[in-house]
Amino acid sequence: MAKWYYKKGEESDVVISTRVRLSRNIADYNFPGRLNPDEKAKINEAVKKAILSAGGAGFSYIEMKDLSRLQAISLAERHLISPEFASENEGSALIISEDESVSIMLNEEDHIKIQVMKSGLATSEVYSAADGIDRVLGDNLTYAFDEKLGYLTSSPTNLGTAMRASVLMHLPALAAENQIFSLANTVSKLGISITGAYGNRRQPAGDIYQVSNQITLGITEETAISNLRSIVMQIAARERTASQRELKDPATEDKIYRALGVLQNVRLINTNEFMHLISSVRLGAVNGIINIPVEKINGLITDIQPATVSLSEGEISSIDARDAARAAKVRDALKI
Amino acid sequence: MAKWYYKKGEESDVVISTRVRLSRNIADYNFPGRLNPDEKAKINEAVKKAILSAGGAGFSYIEMKDLSRLQAISLAERHLISPEFASENEGSALIISEDESVSIMLNEEDHIKIQVMKSGLATSEVYSAADGIDRVLGDNLTYAFDEKLGYLTSSPTNLGTAMRASVLMHLPALAAENQIFSLANTVSKLGISITGAYGNRRQPAGDIYQVSNQITLGITEETAISNLRSIVMQIAARERTASQRELKDPATEDKIYRALGVLQNVRLINTNEFMHLISSVRLGAVNGIINIPVEKINGLITDIQPATVSLSEGEISSIDARDAARAAKVRDALKI
Repeated sequence: MAKWYYKKGEESDVVISTRVRLSRNIADYNFPGRLNPDEKAKINEAVKKAILSAGGAGFSYIEMKDLSRLQAISLAERHLISPEFASENEGSALIISEDESVSIMLNEEDHIKIQVMKSGLATSEVYSAADGIDRVLGDNLTYAFDEKLGYLTSSPTNLGTAMRASVLMHLPALAAENQIFSLANTVSKLGISITGAYGNRRQPAGDIYQVSNQITLGITEETAISNLRSIVMQIAARERTASQRELKDPATEDKIYRALGVLQNVRLINTNEFMHLISSVRLGAVNGIINIPVEKINGLITDIQPATVSLSEGEISSIDARDAARAAKVRDALKI
Repeated sequence: MAKWYYKKGEESDVVISTRVRLSRNIADYNFPGRLNPDEKAKINEAVKKAILSAGGAGFSYIEMKDLSRLQAISLAERHLISPEFASENEGSALIISEDESVSIMLNEEDHIKIQVMKSGLATSEVYSAADGIDRVLGDNLTYAFDEKLGYLTSSPTNLGTAMRASVLMHLPALAAENQIFSLANTVSKLGISITGAYGNRRQPAGDIYQVSNQITLGITEETAISNLRSIVMQIAARERTASQRELKDPATEDKIYRALGVLQNVRLINTNEFMHLISSVRLGAVNGIINIPVEKINGLITDIQPATVSLSEGEISSIDARDAARAAKVRDALKI
């Protein structure tokens, strides 16, 4: 079955994907940090049973302790789990759907973290899907919920809706014009954060940014989702205007084609350089300069991350061999 | 008619071309620096007549004053004249054959400079051809010749045979291994010099070097030619060994393919960057990694030099337009 990230979504020129995460805890249990293995196992069992009883036939249940380090990191690279969860294993588990669009982390910082992802801008759809799973679980389990505070979570910053909605945006033109910092400043006043999605925070790789809601208290899920969507649409409009400006400079077209030429020919490439070059190629693709489907590029960005590449070739250990395997995948994907 | 540099010669993996220049002066005239326009015109006329009477039907006679600055520089880029000659015009003239393999500079530093070029290693052939022209001219004119010193020339460094033979070599592997400097040191003791053929002397562009004889006094032309040939063959052997060593490193193959990818896709490129990248592409081509004929690459190196590119598009003046025109030529030539 094709993974969700190989599908094309709305506003896909600028928006890569949308994700919603709902944090839930079961009443009468401590938060995971203070649970013993037996208690964690009971929670895992209860959630698994609830999902399967609701007819979740396409779902797999995975105990984190059964995964190699590489497998766990690859799950984080595919956004199925948080990076922190990749180093958990005592009593943590994961439920994922076949196309990897739905994942449920069990005994991460909270008992249950329901996550739904979709290509493009799809805030309502992913929220509805997450909400559906939440209802199924809510029918079978008693959530830790306070009439005044809302859902109780181990981190106070999630109290209330306990919902994080985030949108992955590709903003090469705004980044080239050094507009991201002031943009992030502006939207932070509206309860929205913009952070680099790959690489380190100061030098986000591939000009890909995560735009997400920060407010969970005193707001409904619907309002938070609709605020996020409206800000994303405004950022997208600004990116489009900036990219038209950038593309008027012949040096931009040159940069796009050179990046494509390198990626179509590399024999060795690391993740950082790939991210840098694919950003130009993606800009060219969404502006009709290069004829490569954008969903292919999005999928490639996921597939060439270090652990995922290593795994696809049967646990490669040397960096040179991994860079060579990545190069082969890149050449193959970007053939025109 | 195809230019000589679009033909493939011997040892063409390492040797780009061979050139011989013979300097001659006519007795009873001062050297060109001390001639008046009338005297120069007489010399030009006499040489022109001698060449045409010998049946040189394919030759053109050009007065330097009739050329634009761009046209003159383009002749130097195609090695038809010396760079210094490009800024001469008062009374200087040029005779060239249709395929540009033969050129005769009139009233450069000496009255007559006969030059013959050929692709690949062809020391004897180019010497014989130059010698043939020399005989024709010698039958019609009285050369300034001294029984003891040989041919008299305006620069004392040319006295004797007044012959400069030079071979253009592509030495990317020896350059990568920083071996050129010590090589140049060694061969200088044998009366041979190695200098960068393009760019400045400290940073030769494209790893292309000119290997030429320095001794003209107390040596026959045949001996000078045969010494040069034997040293070129030794350098070529060392370059081949070094390139096999370099190609064992996967990073070398990666560099070759990336260079090709960039050149096949550029929209803007200056001469220096082109020279840098084509060096890798040529290394790949001569080692069977890239399927592009080496003579096509050699021709391209000549055709993309600044004045030659500008002229081919009808005297381009802006640097951006020239870089774009060069990029188009490069893409076209390197299509596989």
